[in-house]
Amino acid sequence: MTEGVAPRVWSLVVTIFGDLAQAPDAELSGAALGRLAGAMGVRPEAVRVALHRLRKDGWLESRRTRGGSAYRLTEAGRRESAQASPRIYADAAQAGRAWLVLRDPGSAAAAGEMPGVTWLGASMGLAAREVCGADLYVNEVPRDAPLPGWIRTRVCDAAAVRAARDLAARLGALQAGLAGAAPGPAQRVALRVLVVHGWRRVVLRVPMLPDHVFPDGWAGPECRRRVAGLLAVLDTPDITALEAEALAG
Amino acid sequence: MTEGVAPRVWSLVVTIFGDLAQAPDAELSGAALGRLAGAMGVRPEAVRVALHRLRKDGWLESRRTRGGSAYRLTEAGRRESAQASPRIYADAAQAGRAWLVLRDPGSAAAAGEMPGVTWLGASMGLAAREVCGADLYVNEVPRDAPLPGWIRTRVCDAAAVRAARDLAARLGALQAGLAGAAPGPAQRVALRVLVVHGWRRVVLRVPMLPDHVFPDGWAGPECRRRVAGLLAVLDTPDITALEAEALAG
Repeated sequence: MTEGVAPRVWSLVVTIFGDLAQAPDAELSGAALGRLAGAMGVRPEAVRVALHRLRKDGWLESRRTRGGSAYRLTEAGRRESAQASPRIYADAAQAGRAWLVLRDPGSAAAAGEMPGVTWLGASMGLAAREVCGADLYVNEVPRDAPLPGWIRTRVCDAAAVRAARDLAARLGALQAGLAGAAPGPAQRVALRVLVVHGWRRVVLRVPMLPDHVFPDGWAGPECRRRVAGLLAVLDTPDITALEAEALAG
Repeated sequence: MTEGVAPRVWSLVVTIFGDLAQAPDAELSGAALGRLAGAMGVRPEAVRVALHRLRKDGWLESRRTRGGSAYRLTEAGRRESAQASPRIYADAAQAGRAWLVLRDPGSAAAAGEMPGVTWLGASMGLAAREVCGADLYVNEVPRDAPLPGWIRTRVCDAAAVRAARDLAARLGALQAGLAGAAPGPAQRVALRVLVVHGWRRVVLRVPMLPDHVFPDGWAGPECRRRVAGLLAVLDTPDITALEAEALAG
């Protein structure tokens, strides 16, 4: 699930906390984090560096415990995790309808000033809701009339399309590999986190727009379906068992 | 109706033939044309120059008659007159619906290659019918959601908006002036031709799109209504009486 290269470890740790410890009182011990990372092939020192950086960035906070340290999301880290969760865990696209938005290319308004609109050029954008603005032309994109390719390729670049296709293939291989296998607690959790992490890295890099405005070959729906299938198998991650394994050491 | 300046006489002669002599066998004598032009304040030499030019351009043809010359539209002149007539004489806008058209600004296709589309920029246009094209985004402009001003000002420039407003005012003044007046045959025909000519010069310079995509202050509908009212009063131009007047000298 790591695409053959080590994922940036801090990003992986963000996924771990978002998936396993998003509840207000949830925490993970340094030992359990180390064991989990080990099951993903990440070195303990890399985990320590990532934890240090995420504490410095205000994403995590830690407390000393008898056995070492325990980590939890800060308020800000929890808020951002919660914001991303619907997109990561939904088994359907978060947006079902799309609106074309045109604005005056000669106007001074900056692109960033219109929340909800993904700008695909100086004056053309797409929105997942019916935005309003005196100077805007806003019209729903009919589902039954596909957008031309030159618009859809601006929604999501070729690299993101390729990443989704590759992920779909790896998820399919994992589903096939899991049939009949019985991984232990740490390995189950590691696999689960890697599934979530792989999809998170794809879904959060593309705009929140319905699948029908994406380019030909967009494997988002297939990824979403396979992620849902895998999370149903790798469900209710057993943190207690993970912590116990870590204690046992 | 001539906006205080002499209209280009050849254009006025085009209007005269389009309005009075569009039928396949219709012709106008040089004498009647001179009398009509005189009633509009146009000098006979200017008419002769215009007739010469329009013959050279293949719009008119002439034959010698006992009294002088008679002129008629050529096939080409008649075809073009017939093409413009629906826009000039219709008492309702020729287009009722509008479609927004977007095309790839990076594509090599030239603007002129898509009949029916009025391009308002490198990639955005409006059409009065649902055009088709693999690379086009085409979506109907809802009547109940007005286009933003920056799009509508591209449909028709400020000069054309002003010309329509001025014409509407002059047509209104003419309607008021005609109430109770009883102009003679040549004068009736002259007024009729000037009404048609004034409107023709406005309507043929703007795209054939429905009124609701035109800029604020567009007086097209008012002009159309007033033209229809005036042509109802100045109806069935009496060419025979005009020719008789011309013969009588």
